[in-house]
Amino acid sequence: MKKGVMRPGHVQIRVLDMDEAVKHYVDLLGLIEMDRDDQGRVYLKAWTEVDKFSVVLREADVAGMDFMGFKCLNEEVVDTLRAELIEFGCEVEDIPAGELKDCGHRVRFVAPTGHAFELFATKQQTGKWGVGNRNPEAWPRGLQGMQANRFDHCLLYGPNLDRTLELFRDVLGFDLAEQVVAPDGKRVAQFLTASMKAHDVAFIDHPEPGKFHHASFFLETWNDVLKAADLISMTNTSIDIGPTRHGLTHGQTIYFFDPSGNRNEVFAGGDYHYPDHEPVTWDASELGKAIFYHDRQLNERFLTVLT
Amino acid sequence: MKKGVMRPGHVQIRVLDMDEAVKHYVDLLGLIEMDRDDQGRVYLKAWTEVDKFSVVLREADVAGMDFMGFKCLNEEVVDTLRAELIEFGCEVEDIPAGELKDCGHRVRFVAPTGHAFELFATKQQTGKWGVGNRNPEAWPRGLQGMQANRFDHCLLYGPNLDRTLELFRDVLGFDLAEQVVAPDGKRVAQFLTASMKAHDVAFIDHPEPGKFHHASFFLETWNDVLKAADLISMTNTSIDIGPTRHGLTHGQTIYFFDPSGNRNEVFAGGDYHYPDHEPVTWDASELGKAIFYHDRQLNERFLTVLT
Amino acid sequence: MKKGVMRPGHVQIRVLDMDEAVKHYVDLLGLIEMDRDDQGRVYLKAWTEVDKFSVVLREADVAGMDFMGFKCLNEEVVDTLRAELIEFGCEVEDIPAGELKDCGHRVRFVAPTGHAFELFATKQQTGKWGVGNRNPEAWPRGLQGMQANRFDHCLLYGPNLDRTLELFRDVLGFDLAEQVVAPDGKRVAQFLTASMKAHDVAFIDHPEPGKFHHASFFLETWNDVLKAADLISMTNTSIDIGPTRHGLTHGQTIYFFDPSGNRNEVFAGGDYHYPDHEPVTWDASELGKAIFYHDRQLNERFLTVLT
Amino acid sequence: MKKGVMRPGHVQIRVLDMDEAVKHYVDLLGLIEMDRDDQGRVYLKAWTEVDKFSVVLREADVAGMDFMGFKCLNEEVVDTLRAELIEFGCEVEDIPAGELKDCGHRVRFVAPTGHAFELFATKQQTGKWGVGNRNPEAWPRGLQGMQANRFDHCLLYGPNLDRTLELFRDVLGFDLAEQVVAPDGKRVAQFLTASMKAHDVAFIDHPEPGKFHHASFFLETWNDVLKAADLISMTNTSIDIGPTRHGLTHGQTIYFFDPSGNRNEVFAGGDYHYPDHEPVTWDASELGKAIFYHDRQLNERFLTVLT
Repeated sequence: MKKGVMRPGHVQIRVLDMDEAVKHYVDLLGLIEMDRDDQGRVYLKAWTEVDKFSVVLREADVAGMDFMGFKCLNEEVVDTLRAELIEFGCEVEDIPAGELKDCGHRVRFVAPTGHAFELFATKQQTGKWGVGNRNPEAWPRGLQGMQANRFDHCLLYGPNLDRTLELFRDVLGFDLAEQVVAPDGKRVAQFLTASMKAHDVAFIDHPEPGKFHHASFFLETWNDVLKAADLISMTNTSIDIGPTRHGLTHGQTIYFFDPSGNRNEVFAGGDYHYPDHEPVTWDASELGKAIFYHDRQLNERFLTVLT
Repeated sequence: MKKGVMRPGHVQIRVLDMDEAVKHYVDLLGLIEMDRDDQGRVYLKAWTEVDKFSVVLREADVAGMDFMGFKCLNEEVVDTLRAELIEFGCEVEDIPAGELKDCGHRVRFVAPTGHAFELFATKQQTGKWGVGNRNPEAWPRGLQGMQANRFDHCLLYGPNLDRTLELFRDVLGFDLAEQVVAPDGKRVAQFLTASMKAHDVAFIDHPEPGKFHHASFFLETWNDVLKAADLISMTNTSIDIGPTRHGLTHGQTIYFFDPSGNRNEVFAGGDYHYPDHEPVTWDASELGKAIFYHDRQLNERFLTVLT
Repeated sequence: MKKGVMRPGHVQIRVLDMDEAVKHYVDLLGLIEMDRDDQGRVYLKAWTEVDKFSVVLREADVAGMDFMGFKCLNEEVVDTLRAELIEFGCEVEDIPAGELKDCGHRVRFVAPTGHAFELFATKQQTGKWGVGNRNPEAWPRGLQGMQANRFDHCLLYGPNLDRTLELFRDVLGFDLAEQVVAPDGKRVAQFLTASMKAHDVAFIDHPEPGKFHHASFFLETWNDVLKAADLISMTNTSIDIGPTRHGLTHGQTIYFFDPSGNRNEVFAGGDYHYPDHEPVTWDASELGKAIFYHDRQLNERFLTVLT
Repeated sequence: MKKGVMRPGHVQIRVLDMDEAVKHYVDLLGLIEMDRDDQGRVYLKAWTEVDKFSVVLREADVAGMDFMGFKCLNEEVVDTLRAELIEFGCEVEDIPAGELKDCGHRVRFVAPTGHAFELFATKQQTGKWGVGNRNPEAWPRGLQGMQANRFDHCLLYGPNLDRTLELFRDVLGFDLAEQVVAPDGKRVAQFLTASMKAHDVAFIDHPEPGKFHHASFFLETWNDVLKAADLISMTNTSIDIGPTRHGLTHGQTIYFFDPSGNRNEVFAGGDYHYPDHEPVTWDASELGKAIFYHDRQLNERFLTVLT
């Protein structure tokens, strides 16, 4: 949080059929539907999040991610970083308050990897769902499916990892928590964090810009990963891989697909990071183990990404 | 326990290199070396077992299983069942007390699937390892690796499943707990239990007789399955599949290989069975899900078996 | 299962207010209401049980246990054991089929501790709740509260433990799995099992006959014990003690009270027993640790029992 | 991390007998002994910590806490905060580099509650114990006892909570994550964090200054809390309370005492905090539930504190 960027605040995901998508994210992942807007977008949140929403679903002809937004400490931070982004060479777009319902002014920019990101500081706070803020119970009764705790991060594929690291580190105050390095020293994957989490956003080197690998949601325990896996089977949902552990971050994970083909992750555990921690480095020769710690080899599906 | 057969009492496994094998079963699985004999066989046990040993390793040129032994209530049961086995049409072989160190008389027979089994009632009882029998602690300190709790069951491949079921059910008093049935009604897998466990021995239909799929060991929790998976990676042990859940029995499992190529399973959880329970039936069309509940498809390696 | 007694099949519990009681056992414990009868009794089951019911609630002026019933392999076993009970000196009462709805003939007798028990072999089988018997999912969606798996055992207080052990061991084929022994050699607690479970019924020495300590229900994991504890708080339910572990059986446990004052236990894990296992012995000087392994001292409430 | 204070970096604890203390913190908690100094102090760390040590044991006639130190981003932060502390009204003491072995310059000050704290930025980094920083395994083999992950926080008793909050919030950049408020509006407990953790230091209102309640260490899972509880019994260690959950932070916890009478906590889970989160407020009338979520009442021992 060196520059005032706190956390991933939202992700807007394109889905092919809204009804199917809502069923998937609500009944299966356990997100809570909070609102809809004039455009037909659906606003969802995970129960531990204090802001009104963190996932926005937009019906479209092609699946994928529209943009990912980071919440900042306050509007001054947004203004300062807006200026620094321009100085860095980014084109910035000002999205007026209310374009996302109950969300304030957003500053949108495109990273050198080709992905659209946003900074914002204002969003309606509805508090943790079902428990409130005064003498709160440990968890709310009535959660569904995987009972996802929070939107955690995205993994994105694209080119220009070095320049993107400069942007996130030098302009936005992120740390490089983990990386995969090729024999020639080139960084082929970088996991970035604004706080103590192992990653708030991660990038894998890829020739095509702006590709979407997955949006990830946090679970409490490895037992919850098992139940998530069970629910994937019970609902005949398309699985990618898991339950397993990542080498990178050591999180306990499972990947699967929403009905539109967007990859989701739910995971538990994982390492923590402080700014004085040296980046953890994986050699590209160990990439299989870095990604899937138990199988120690990539499956083909891991390499597929969406626009 | 309708006819006095209590549980799997031991399995003798052939290994290509004894030192490597002992390292695998002791350091990785967490079995305890209890003794060695003149033939160079090594006797191991899991910590919750009261008998002196449950796994016997024998160095040989070809990996696989020599035989699996069931412990009976008493010698009268062994004698009675010996007579009934002969009546059923089995050839029986009497193995004298002491052939396995500190084990009494064993009655060996070959099932219609081509596998050698034994019945016995007498084996030295050394008690649970490290905790004793008076004011026992919850678990012993000093366990290694996966901290396997007990030898649980074997999965075997061979022909003549119907006749083998008759032998185990009618002569030995086992129940059919679970089965996989082909569209033509043929039973292609059968899971048999002498007690409350989901299976004490299981068979899958296979044209070649006497094939060995795996020996399985029980763990306490799904967390222990995760740690087992981690240890498999840390020790660069060959993994088959997992962590995952079985559809059959619903146990939480991981498969891997010992240095000789024998497949091991460690698992936790799983259903229980009583004699009045109808067998659980899986359709062969759902075989992928029956075996690997999350992936819902077999991997090729699952089909490989040893002599 | 040496004499054909399989397991605890049901317990009839007296409650002061049926509506409150049903809310407690259904919403909190997660039992499923299966039926009601002309007398106003409510029939409940836990989801993994194949029989139609295992808990019967009867509204009465005084809380406590009416009787506990054990299911036998078949009616021949019931008839044989009926004769042996009479020979042992018990008065037996024949309860006609249908007195408990969809349950066959029951043989009732009073143990020397003053508790009423029953043997029966016939009860309608409705199968595991929500999963069925063909290609069954790992667990049903829609379970409530603690999601109790099965009625597991009762702990009862009364005199004449030696004679009661003779009855359960010699007539009914139970094993003495664990015991607490006073310095003078007197057995002051005995845990009895008909199968692999650490206990199907347990007795603690007490001058007054026929006292009820608790009915116990099985959970899958220590995580489920935590969630049970959380739910106890959320519902403002009276807690006795826990989460903790028992020394005896080493189960992971929590005790609490239903609205009528009947003590319930939910627990996970615990040791297993086979007939060739020597009984585990705890010294009465270690009674605190035997009962509550972590605190190593009894709380006063543990000593309170109901009629 | 608004002002550059990252995390609790160390705590110096007074023990009555160093050999007993080292055995407790190493064999039972699972800390690793890293060094000793001329004064006889022993330096320990938990395995996930990258710095050389986090716990310093000093033999003395009276148990308790000497001081707690926070690690800052860099020396500039230390210098700036030193000036601000003086401006706030604190006396500051400069402890030269090397006074704690392999630790740089420390700025010590006494909070209005009467406790000594330190700021520092430089300490030798030895990396995570047993796993390294390149292709790191998920966890090191060879950990002992409770396998504590990291020194997490201290709970301290003293007066002047308001002024202490001002110091930590306004000077040091901490957030008020949780609080307990009396009916008259007085804050009687405050949980403060410099980052995402539910607390880095916590204070409870108490008439006597400088009292030490406990030092806390993080575990991975609720299963690890169970094993910690088991080890407490196995080693005949004095237990305070647990396993249970806190209402405040919702962490899963157990309290116990080192041989000198210093209270330790190990815990897992718990809520996370971001700077835009409103403080969670517990009413003093719910203090029992706030502290011990399951029992919903304080035990007497909780109120005892050390000098």
